[in-house]
Amino acid sequence: MIRIGIDAMGGDFAPNNVILGAIEAYSYINADTKIFLIGDEKKITEVCQHYGIDSGNFVIVHAPESIEMGEHPVRAFRKKKKSSLVVGFNMLAEGKIDVFASAGNTGAMLAGSVQVLNNIPGIIRPCIPAQIPLANGRNMLLLDVGFNSDTRADVLYQFGIMGSIFAKAMMGIDNPRVALLNIGAESEKGNIITQEAYKIMNDSTDFNFVGNMEANMLFNGGIADVLVTDGFVGNICLKQAEGMYELVAKLGVKHPFFNRFNYETYGGTPILGVTAPVIIGHGVSTPLAIKNMILQGEMVVEQKIIEKFKKAMLAVSAN
Amino acid sequence: MIRIGIDAMGGDFAPNNVILGAIEAYSYINADTKIFLIGDEKKITEVCQHYGIDSGNFVIVHAPESIEMGEHPVRAFRKKKKSSLVVGFNMLAEGKIDVFASAGNTGAMLAGSVQVLNNIPGIIRPCIPAQIPLANGRNMLLLDVGFNSDTRADVLYQFGIMGSIFAKAMMGIDNPRVALLNIGAESEKGNIITQEAYKIMNDSTDFNFVGNMEANMLFNGGIADVLVTDGFVGNICLKQAEGMYELVAKLGVKHPFFNRFNYETYGGTPILGVTAPVIIGHGVSTPLAIKNMILQGEMVVEQKIIEKFKKAMLAVSAN
Repeated sequence: MIRIGIDAMGGDFAPNNVILGAIEAYSYINADTKIFLIGDEKKITEVCQHYGIDSGNFVIVHAPESIEMGEHPVRAFRKKKKSSLVVGFNMLAEGKIDVFASAGNTGAMLAGSVQVLNNIPGIIRPCIPAQIPLANGRNMLLLDVGFNSDTRADVLYQFGIMGSIFAKAMMGIDNPRVALLNIGAESEKGNIITQEAYKIMNDSTDFNFVGNMEANMLFNGGIADVLVTDGFVGNICLKQAEGMYELVAKLGVKHPFFNRFNYETYGGTPILGVTAPVIIGHGVSTPLAIKNMILQGEMVVEQKIIEKFKKAMLAVSAN
Repeated sequence: MIRIGIDAMGGDFAPNNVILGAIEAYSYINADTKIFLIGDEKKITEVCQHYGIDSGNFVIVHAPESIEMGEHPVRAFRKKKKSSLVVGFNMLAEGKIDVFASAGNTGAMLAGSVQVLNNIPGIIRPCIPAQIPLANGRNMLLLDVGFNSDTRADVLYQFGIMGSIFAKAMMGIDNPRVALLNIGAESEKGNIITQEAYKIMNDSTDFNFVGNMEANMLFNGGIADVLVTDGFVGNICLKQAEGMYELVAKLGVKHPFFNRFNYETYGGTPILGVTAPVIIGHGVSTPLAIKNMILQGEMVVEQKIIEKFKKAMLAVSAN
């Protein structure tokens, strides 16, 4: 049985969109998967009644407080012990749910991951990946896209390990080709950190390292299935891609490729490297986005991502 | 009188495209501007004869050697004293030409700028800007796009000074709004270097600093006319924009906006912060690109960019 915890109060249109998304997901999840709606019980029941949804399809966990989008994430996480977000993290840490997903305050989600869950032993820094649509119809995994503004070479190498495992398990790519985002293909190119990361990754047999890759290949995939960078650069790449999406819309350019940038397709992005699965949704999440966030959560548990990360880190430390 | 030195042997299609571009530029430059073609005199004369071009329109400076595209830039620059590129830099340093432009080996151009010209007093690191076309028809200046892979906060602040002067003189933007490329708008966002750079830029009155800007505004301009970043990030942004240009071409998407990414429009990119004007052209330069490289060179001299940089640095050090 898989138990998916959802922050019913998370996101700009909560709890309505969360509950509508949960009921959409309900027809897709396994028969023995349970969706836990964490939030104000009265409000959840009211919304279910309003839309004629059978609230008996869900396990409702009462959490009377909620962390708003504008609140200081770390302070709110410490103070609001009865908020849906804090209750969700505690349930996850106590093993009462298998995955926790929220479209709420992103900073509070990051704070919770660090404060309640801790890192998987051996992992220096967690990270956030994003799937970049490629012109050939496939996706490439870019990571980190924003967890770490400052990084180190050995941290980038660990992103390669996590990215490789994630791409295989979640994207169905066998022996994923892992590249380092850089400003030239040659091994000596880049800044001090990428130069050092290149050496570590090239010496490693922990994943299929294929070398440096430049950003002009971001939308054709180039040589890579997984592209490693620090959270500062990765976030800028992702935002620039968003800017491109907005640009073509503004210019009136239509092509099905650009629809694949729609965040609703994935519904959220996981935090990789912490001891339990956490998925961060977009603040403006629609019911479709929430549905896909829940399905992604189920798959992360089914694919035993955390166990695979733990095993990989044990293998690394044994070498 | 403005004397523009051109590396006749620089670029994949030299000397043909260089000479064809020079003769195109000839009808646009001021009557008292002189184009110096630096390269193998015999080859230059042959090409002129082949195309029926009057070589008397140019000053031909004989340089029997040439640095090839694949050569190690620093080694080639040291060894090939009689190459068109080294002769050009020496003429520039000796004041025999007012600007030097080449579509040849970029690394050798950077090496020459550092080894022969030196930095303007007070400038810590030179940089390379690029004009990014915006959806509103204007351009934004992004710098640095590749000179410095590792940087410091005070170096970013100096890029703000140079970018502001360049945008006013070369792009006709009065009191240019200078922003710092970052992963959030708030002052405390970013990595250690951008956090510190924000403080220095915000405290400064040397240019019109408007704060942090995110990369999703790269093609609409957001709040800025000049966007400052380090050469690693700037190069990745520029390459990703190139990737977008290639992507839309591959998808068959047509819109006049994307034509503005054509490198031929500007013909080359200047190196800012060294003691004399240097312009680097694209290796595949067409005659049109060479023509625009020459016209940009003339404008850089007319606009007294170097003098303006020197004056600004004196003002800064006097504070």
